[in-house]
Amino acid sequence: MTAQDQVAADGVATARVVFQPSGRRGTFPLGTPLLDAARALGVYVESVCGGRGICGRCQVSVSEGRFAKEKLSSSADHLGPVTEAEARYASLRQLAADRRLSCQATILGDMVVDVPVDAQTNRQVVRKRAETVKLAPDSTIRLVAVTIDEPDMDQPLGDADRLLSVLARETGLSGLSLDAPLLARVQAILRKGNWHVTAAIWQDGGHPPLVTALWPGEKTTVYGLAVDIGSTTIAAHLCDLATGRTVTSAGTSNPQIRFGEDLMSRVSYVQMNPERLPDLVATVRAAVDALVAKLVADVGASRADVLDAVVVGNPIMHHLFLGIDPTELGGAPFALAVSGAVHQRADALGLELNPGARVYMLPCIAGHVGADAAAATLSTRPFEADAITLVVDIGTNAEIVLGNRDRLLAASSPTGPAFEGAEISCGQRAAPGAIERIRIDPVTLEPRFKVIGLDEWSDDPEFAGKKDQVGVTGICGSGIIEAVAELFLAGVITEDGLIDGTLAEKSPRIIRQGRTFAYVIAAEGIELAIGQRDIRAIQLAKAALYAGIQLLSDKLGNPEIARIRLAGAFGSYIDTKYAMILGLIPDCDLAEVASVGNAAGTGARMALVNRGERRVIERVVREIEKIETALEPRFQEHFVNAMAIPNKVDRFPRLSQVVALPVPGRALAEGGETEPDDGGRRRRRRRG
Amino acid sequence: MTAQDQVAADGVATARVVFQPSGRRGTFPLGTPLLDAARALGVYVESVCGGRGICGRCQVSVSEGRFAKEKLSSSADHLGPVTEAEARYASLRQLAADRRLSCQATILGDMVVDVPVDAQTNRQVVRKRAETVKLAPDSTIRLVAVTIDEPDMDQPLGDADRLLSVLARETGLSGLSLDAPLLARVQAILRKGNWHVTAAIWQDGGHPPLVTALWPGEKTTVYGLAVDIGSTTIAAHLCDLATGRTVTSAGTSNPQIRFGEDLMSRVSYVQMNPERLPDLVATVRAAVDALVAKLVADVGASRADVLDAVVVGNPIMHHLFLGIDPTELGGAPFALAVSGAVHQRADALGLELNPGARVYMLPCIAGHVGADAAAATLSTRPFEADAITLVVDIGTNAEIVLGNRDRLLAASSPTGPAFEGAEISCGQRAAPGAIERIRIDPVTLEPRFKVIGLDEWSDDPEFAGKKDQVGVTGICGSGIIEAVAELFLAGVITEDGLIDGTLAEKSPRIIRQGRTFAYVIAAEGIELAIGQRDIRAIQLAKAALYAGIQLLSDKLGNPEIARIRLAGAFGSYIDTKYAMILGLIPDCDLAEVASVGNAAGTGARMALVNRGERRVIERVVREIEKIETALEPRFQEHFVNAMAIPNKVDRFPRLSQVVALPVPGRALAEGGETEPDDGGRRRRRRRG
Repeated sequence: MTAQDQVAADGVATARVVFQPSGRRGTFPLGTPLLDAARALGVYVESVCGGRGICGRCQVSVSEGRFAKEKLSSSADHLGPVTEAEARYASLRQLAADRRLSCQATILGDMVVDVPVDAQTNRQVVRKRAETVKLAPDSTIRLVAVTIDEPDMDQPLGDADRLLSVLARETGLSGLSLDAPLLARVQAILRKGNWHVTAAIWQDGGHPPLVTALWPGEKTTVYGLAVDIGSTTIAAHLCDLATGRTVTSAGTSNPQIRFGEDLMSRVSYVQMNPERLPDLVATVRAAVDALVAKLVADVGASRADVLDAVVVGNPIMHHLFLGIDPTELGGAPFALAVSGAVHQRADALGLELNPGARVYMLPCIAGHVGADAAAATLSTRPFEADAITLVVDIGTNAEIVLGNRDRLLAASSPTGPAFEGAEISCGQRAAPGAIERIRIDPVTLEPRFKVIGLDEWSDDPEFAGKKDQVGVTGICGSGIIEAVAELFLAGVITEDGLIDGTLAEKSPRIIRQGRTFAYVIAAEGIELAIGQRDIRAIQLAKAALYAGIQLLSDKLGNPEIARIRLAGAFGSYIDTKYAMILGLIPDCDLAEVASVGNAAGTGARMALVNRGERRVIERVVREIEKIETALEPRFQEHFVNAMAIPNKVDRFPRLSQVVALPVPGRALAEGGETEPDDGGRRRRRRRG
Repeated sequence: MTAQDQVAADGVATARVVFQPSGRRGTFPLGTPLLDAARALGVYVESVCGGRGICGRCQVSVSEGRFAKEKLSSSADHLGPVTEAEARYASLRQLAADRRLSCQATILGDMVVDVPVDAQTNRQVVRKRAETVKLAPDSTIRLVAVTIDEPDMDQPLGDADRLLSVLARETGLSGLSLDAPLLARVQAILRKGNWHVTAAIWQDGGHPPLVTALWPGEKTTVYGLAVDIGSTTIAAHLCDLATGRTVTSAGTSNPQIRFGEDLMSRVSYVQMNPERLPDLVATVRAAVDALVAKLVADVGASRADVLDAVVVGNPIMHHLFLGIDPTELGGAPFALAVSGAVHQRADALGLELNPGARVYMLPCIAGHVGADAAAATLSTRPFEADAITLVVDIGTNAEIVLGNRDRLLAASSPTGPAFEGAEISCGQRAAPGAIERIRIDPVTLEPRFKVIGLDEWSDDPEFAGKKDQVGVTGICGSGIIEAVAELFLAGVITEDGLIDGTLAEKSPRIIRQGRTFAYVIAAEGIELAIGQRDIRAIQLAKAALYAGIQLLSDKLGNPEIARIRLAGAFGSYIDTKYAMILGLIPDCDLAEVASVGNAAGTGARMALVNRGERRVIERVVREIEKIETALEPRFQEHFVNAMAIPNKVDRFPRLSQVVALPVPGRALAEGGETEPDDGGRRRRRRRG
């Protein structure tokens, strides 16, 4: 029963609300917060503060005037008064005159609500930007313009049959057929084009060639869609299939978050509520479909111009997008329903593209190593390298691929969400106001930091005047890595990760928190501190990652790792040096450690614009040796050793050439000069 | 807006009605006739008398008792009283105690209405019965039972992938894949079968082999559906795909009749109301789907046991079933949207079979010669004969195929609906009460006849006592042919088709009708007479057919026609001798003239149980020479010559060995003995 049905049944005074641009509408009791109304109707408006008027993500505006079609007289008067929380937000962060926070504004009369683009697509900084793909275009779609004879009673071949015969002659293709849904449209299109039409012929792998789309007259530009469905964010790119160029990109939060913040909680949700599986499936498909609307609008194209799509995601997102119950992936043996590449019709997956559009999903490598890892592998190409290459895609699970052209191994490590800012007391996602960079003076222990949304560091004289634009709201994944590494370099924490409480006497930054201590980064507005539990969470996460890498390295005979590629949103923004100081990744020449951005999205685009890449990754995935970390007895041993910072095994000889690491086992027992840091300032290691 | 919404809005007193077995339900104003309620809900109840309580086709029964789930107290008391028309019908034709005529019975309270099987599937005698097909079975479906390994974390191939690899090994098939919708079900099925499952592998033509269905454990019997969609009736057969045997058949009226009695009126309807195309499409698909329910129930199977289907029909039915606008078929150049064979998913065509079931539609030969004619050609096999063979499928259009293994020609002739009893004053479809056989004594001019539904002829002493069981309601196609031929043989009509009015003085059977005359067959109850206009309609129809045949014969150099096959409902029931006397078909040894029943349905079954037959008919249809009668200048000449009885050109030497025909041009001018008729009685030709 929908909200408005209940209202009608109860006889409560109600008002009608239409949300734009989605056009969804409903009737709600007077006094209902707009955010609740939006949620009841499935209109996506972000909110991260739990409706407390703090985050400002849920801004909307209310249109004025009468709407004849709806018989709806909409006015700002139909909104409840500005609340205290809203006034505070407006004074602190600024709120445009036509905006209201939908968690605060209540419904007092009929209205039309505009959900601004920034709220629709989520103001969170979706850090999945398209990298440039340089690849000879060879997509699955070939456009062929032909003129066919008019129908002839003496040769009564059907219109579709005459078209196919001319196309076959023109292209030399045999076994060409017409996608069944086109049968009902072929006559009108041929007549509209006066017997001159452009056909899109789809060819992929062993499938017989198929005419999937048809336009009257000439058609020269068609697009493909590449999508990386993460558990937190979804990134989509629109590519010109003829040139292979990415013409626009867009991202959004994965709205499945409402069914569970992380992957396993969504699987649990399905296990507990199997009847809700269709909702989870529809939710992610609708989010992708909404991105399509944005992408095609960006370039002035239409949905019908999109002929092909490649979708990647971790195994659970992959399964949910395909409509497959992910329950088996929730426990050993983590059985995938399907691991090979999947072809589907786009319309069967709820995507409104051209009615004949196809979707290709890259193969999954294993139950924890999905099509996203396959795509990252495709774009980073360790299978073509002589050098031993490590590819790490860090999310709630870290996918690890290690090896070279001779042998490639893959595994997943359960890093948990700490790297994404979860499980950290002041952690948050990478969004404006989040600390993303931090330096700690080893002498004074004073921090300086940079927040997302402002260019100035906190010790810049202009920072104080500007910081209220975004606030200082928390610390995101890359900020936490730097904070813990800097605390280690500054001697505040030991190699075992313990905060040295004796420093509390020397610096107000070190404070007691129950039986342990914490380091305070900022104390204005909200208190931002890194406590012992936060550091422990980071240690657990980085130890899981490192142990996974070590396990694969063992299998390869512990070769020297010559190249490291860090993929994913987190991998894109962390400073590789700090990742190495913390021991997330093994020792390597820093010049050979690179962030490759959204490598999964890049791989998806490669498979989109060049179908040969699909065959490459299908072959590579078959050949990759899959290691299940849970089955390996040495994983635990590696994990325990990797808890220390950087860890208890490696000496990090190459990193040590750049950064003077505290000597493991002797931390805080001796002193010394550090190497110059990237700021060029010298700093002294504190004595213990 | 549905009927019940209107009612609720108007505040009129209403009652709820549930129709069984469909379960459709609605709320209607008190006083609504049950037939109107059924129609509003899309429940198919036949009625051919326009709701006048005459035809008795719309019988239903009303269940008594309370229905807890519906909170519905149903009782015969909730029905309006028996009407005068109903009482008359009951006294005349008998009406079971629990039955009411739904056009007469009105709704006075909540009720559950049972639509009896005879009303659901139409009491009309659907004369499309399955002929025995003897063909080595080689269907598109192969059942393979396999056991696969359980999932293994060390070899994390997906469940579907392991299944496919075992199936490929077992069958030697390459390029095997899983039908996309199965991906969401494969894990549950494998686990339910404890890793032992039966897969249905579909293979047809150039399509890569596909697993379209999967069952836990062993599955040994699966079925296919063969459907012939005529403009008037739809016949469907269920075949065991392993044995090739037809296990059950069923027929129904084509409910599209409500959009137009004949094909061209349905095309006009779509032209005038293009927005109603989906309704026409849905109507015919729903009728086929309803037959599926009946067929599977007949053999205790389920819809999911049906894996494949072959559908044939004339071009307009073919297009409408595929969802294609038939407008182009309504006028020259009669362009088919598609003439080649079509593969589709059954679910895309609204058929609820196994979710992976496929539908194959035979190719169409030309804009007027459809997949039904192709199927009739497949089953009568002129393309394998040395002898020149004529295949005629008579409906509103007659499809004509003439030739042999060397050369085959096809055409369509616009015979109109006279042969089906339309355009005839006392004509009706082949249903109980229709005269189907008639003999006219050449001396007394008295008729004797036989009606459908009774074994006795009208001159049988028992006939009088039994005839009220079915009544004598009209004359159907085969009856009209015999009547006109007998009138000709009895000298009542001339070779030009004129009724000899001078006979009115000698027999009360000949009566004046305005400026012409008529022959009265029966006068009890309703008057059944053959008038001049009726004879003219038959002449026009048979001339069109004969002219089409002659045109093809011309193209072949007028060879001797050695075999004639009469297909279709009409062709099945006419006496071939009378057809030849009337000049419907050319002279031929009567032993070589055979009715082949529903040859189109037979061909559909052949293509269903043996996929090689699909390749045969695809090749034959490509090779058939299509003749468009409208474009041939000699058609009109042949047509005019063929108006006479038998016609003005042929001497019918072989027919004359069996029947003494009046000499053309000298009819009624001389006399002579006739040959014995099939009753063994001798009769004298009357003098003019």
